Amino acid sequence: MAILAWLHNAYGRDLIDGIRAALPGEDIREWPEAGDPDAIDICIVFRMPHGFLKPFRNLALMSATGAGIDHYLLDPDFPRGIRMVRIVDHDFASRMADYVLAWTLFHHRDVAHFLAAQKRREWAYKIMRSAREVRVGVMGLGQMGRLAAERLAGVGYDTAAWSRSRHEVPGVACFAGAEGFGPFLARSEILINLLPLTPTTRGILSAATFAGMPPGGVVISAGRGGHLVEADLAAALRQGTLRAATIDAFPVEPLPADSPLWDTPNLTVTPHCSSTASLRTIVDTFAENVRRFRAGAALLNEVDTLAGY
Amino acid sequence: MAILAWLHNAYGRDLIDGIRAALPGEDIREWPEAGDPDAIDICIVFRMPHGFLKPFRNLALMSATGAGIDHYLLDPDFPRGIRMVRIVDHDFASRMADYVLAWTLFHHRDVAHFLAAQKRREWAYKIMRSAREVRVGVMGLGQMGRLAAERLAGVGYDTAAWSRSRHEVPGVACFAGAEGFGPFLARSEILINLLPLTPTTRGILSAATFAGMPPGGVVISAGRGGHLVEADLAAALRQGTLRAATIDAFPVEPLPADSPLWDTPNLTVTPHCSSTASLRTIVDTFAENVRRFRAGAALLNEVDTLAGY
Ligand SMILES: NC(=O)c1ccc[n+]([C@@H]2O[C@H](COP(=O)([O-])OP(=O)(O)OC[C@H]3O[C@@H](n4cnc5c(N)ncnc54)[C@H](OP(=O)(O)O)[C@@H]3O)[C@@H](O)[C@H]2O)c1
Ligand SMILES: NC(=O)c1ccc[n+]([C@@H]2O[C@H](COP(=O)([O-])OP(=O)(O)OC[C@H]3O[C@@H](n4cnc5c(N)ncnc54)[C@H](OP(=O)(O)O)[C@@H]3O)[C@@H](O)[C@H]2O)c1
Repeated sequence: MAILAWLHNAYGRDLIDGIRAALPGEDIREWPEAGDPDAIDICIVFRMPHGFLKPFRNLALMSATGAGIDHYLLDPDFPRGIRMVRIVDHDFASRMADYVLAWTLFHHRDVAHFLAAQKRREWAYKIMRSAREVRVGVMGLGQMGRLAAERLAGVGYDTAAWSRSRHEVPGVACFAGAEGFGPFLARSEILINLLPLTPTTRGILSAATFAGMPPGGVVISAGRGGHLVEADLAAALRQGTLRAATIDAFPVEPLPADSPLWDTPNLTVTPHCSSTASLRTIVDTFAENVRRFRAGAALLNEVDTLAGY
Repeated sequence: MAILAWLHNAYGRDLIDGIRAALPGEDIREWPEAGDPDAIDICIVFRMPHGFLKPFRNLALMSATGAGIDHYLLDPDFPRGIRMVRIVDHDFASRMADYVLAWTLFHHRDVAHFLAAQKRREWAYKIMRSAREVRVGVMGLGQMGRLAAERLAGVGYDTAAWSRSRHEVPGVACFAGAEGFGPFLARSEILINLLPLTPTTRGILSAATFAGMPPGGVVISAGRGGHLVEADLAAALRQGTLRAATIDAFPVEPLPADSPLWDTPNLTVTPHCSSTASLRTIVDTFAENVRRFRAGAALLNEVDTLAGY
């Protein structure tokens, strides 16, 4: 059997070279040189186009190169019943926590105010609140959300988090499920989205959610574009329901040059840069999963395809 | 005996009102209504003009409303031999740590790059380094420096610190004294100044210091304006010896509208906003010190006027 790779991501050729070096005994084929499609039983992909996997009738395992697998599950031609693995890694989550901290502090410390004042050569002193007076709320307590919540609490923020099932995180007020959402939102001045994109979470960054937050709140989203109702975000920022937002993931990426989001007031756009798994981590995780799969052993980081994450 | 107050700071009348309420038995006089100058034995001041304390021959205790006392010691007419106290407080240091983290993350995560790209409607993706790959160095391990270093280490930065005497801070590589300065600088990509201003530290943010850092480093200073050699900073930024800087304290404040620093490339100017002690803390600390002074007990946060901090 053989492995198919479709890896048009930031690492370019280094990733495929790394995989070849880590799995010397494997027959690794790079799209479009797939050879006999029936020989392929494993694939490693980065946001390949929908329909792409249809010809591979013997595909049994798919490995993502990142944390999310929503793009694949949304493919109507996605081979049903195959197993999926993804990347779970401390350094990967740590870089996401860096992003979350950077933008939480940016908004808490009102960096935009100081940058604007500097342009006017204006000494615009103001007293800052302490992190412990600022209530932040993290949506999602998976690999990304949990570390981000721990780090926020560690630097002193009054931190809450929300997940599907109930969790306990020291120093973090944990809310769960539909009934926990309202109380969680009501106390989240700075709302941080680290949910996976599933049918249940699609469109969760909506007017209703923004209205449930304290007035003049801030939204930071490093989840998926499908979480965001773009028009609702723009309206909330224009009307002042939200004071500011920073968004890393958009329904269409790269964000089109004519998107109104580029110059929506108080919105910062970041180009899906919040975190990327390291090349080493992707290679090592994939190689280990291939070995485990061939040996019939339990896989690392297997996705619950029914739950969608 | 009586207390003299000169408190033209951000809290306005609330501070003097708070002090009166906390010390109901004391005769508290507000400049310019000082009455008989010989009755004054205690004063609480905020950056009063030099020469201001000269008439008060019986002054025995001065309380600052912040952390630094350099401004007072620089007054040639400052009454020699009086005791000085200042503010030491966890929340005060915590807000400084917020500032340090906010700007460290701003530079590490290259927020300026993303803000500039957004203006051009450009999706300028790049891979970010993890905090543990970024070497930060904190100058000063007093109330401000220690907490900042601990927080930086806590969120994963490869953290060092430098002080006069040797300290041990878990997770922080500690350097001390003149012989420790070179090795400390050589590993500090992001250099954070939290030193007090003394004759020894004046002008420490100079061309020689910048040249001792790894090329393309970043300087963040929330110490004092006297630490900074303005022309050296501007030159280092123009020549690329430094990649960026954020400065909170300047030789003349407010920074004059015609200062070239306002539009020096890659320099962010913040208006001495990094931290301010809370009104409650200033009032409580001062009231406690007045009681201790009257009772002949040991004072809180007494300054070593010989060392200058
Ligand atoms: N922008 C980027 O560069 C970037 C990089 C990496 C990851 N991401 C995105 O970050 C997000 C988080 O990734 P992850 O690896 O941390 O995900 P994960 O480990 O699968 O964690 C998912 C978390 O969300 C919770 N959740 C799922 N559905 C929910 C619902 N309906 N209501 C409430 N909570 C729900 C889960 O609750 P339970 O704990 O109860 O199961 C879990 O805590 C994903 O969207 C991923 O695509 C983006
Ligand atoms: N911008 C603002 O809004 C703001 C707000 C608050 C404070 N500040 C400034 O922040 C700075 C730090 O305040 P702090 O309260 O933390 O001061 P501190 O408690 O007095 O600490 C001073 C630290 O600097 C070290 N130090 C002093 N002279 C040194 C020298 N020649 N070489 C090496 N290390 C030296 C001391 O070393 P040892 O430990 O060995 O004595 C000590 O660790 C001050 O400049 C203060 O004015 C600014």
